[in-house]
Amino acid sequence: MKSINLKEKYELVDAHWHPHQIGIVDNMQVLLAKLKGEFVWHAHENEDELFHVIKGTLHMQFRDRTEVVNEGEIIIVPKGIEHCPTTKNKEEVQVLLFEKLTTNHTGKVESELTQTDYPKI
Amino acid sequence: MKSINLKEKYELVDAHWHPHQIGIVDNMQVLLAKLKGEFVWHAHENEDELFHVIKGTLHMQFRDRTEVVNEGEIIIVPKGIEHCPTTKNKEEVQVLLFEKLTTNHTGKVESELTQTDYPKI
Repeated sequence: MKSINLKEKYELVDAHWHPHQIGIVDNMQVLLAKLKGEFVWHAHENEDELFHVIKGTLHMQFRDRTEVVNEGEIIIVPKGIEHCPTTKNKEEVQVLLFEKLTTNHTGKVESELTQTDYPKI
Repeated sequence: MKSINLKEKYELVDAHWHPHQIGIVDNMQVLLAKLKGEFVWHAHENEDELFHVIKGTLHMQFRDRTEVVNEGEIIIVPKGIEHCPTTKNKEEVQVLLFEKLTTNHTGKVESELTQTDYPKI
């Protein structure tokens, strides 16, 4: 029951696209990640996924359009929807993720970016 | 799948201690609330509760101590733990809450502040 300082936690993370777990709320986890460039197209078959942009601008690509998610904004990607998070101009973007403990960040897609566990920090 | 701008959403809320729902992630809801003064002592028997301070400083009282939660910080209150969110010096504090759809914000405590539903905004 201690305060979790996001700025301090981001300083512990170097790698991009590698979520780290900072907390658990019932069956959900709070992850933070630094994003830079383009991720991989994927969907989560059974889980919604929340992105909260803490710093920078996230460009969330869907198959038919791209949604710009600015600092201080949230987007919720419903289960089953293909998406590909991207940042522009090599900007590093800091996001909080909120999703089930069972969620794999690349869905069923196997990529060199796929992480099978999220370090706790 | 639209961006949710927190600043714009807070402008739609006047009352203190009255959560409004801005999104759903599987079995959890994202609420925002403006806090001012002292809430009521309560616990959530079966649900954890996350507070993310977007603006101001939250003083989370527990029975044995108070945890200061600054802007940009998160605190997770585990199920069963009595707590009483408070702000000091009449400061208005903006928080995001993350909790189950079934969570009642005053737990089993009936108070004049108790809300039985959370307007969607």
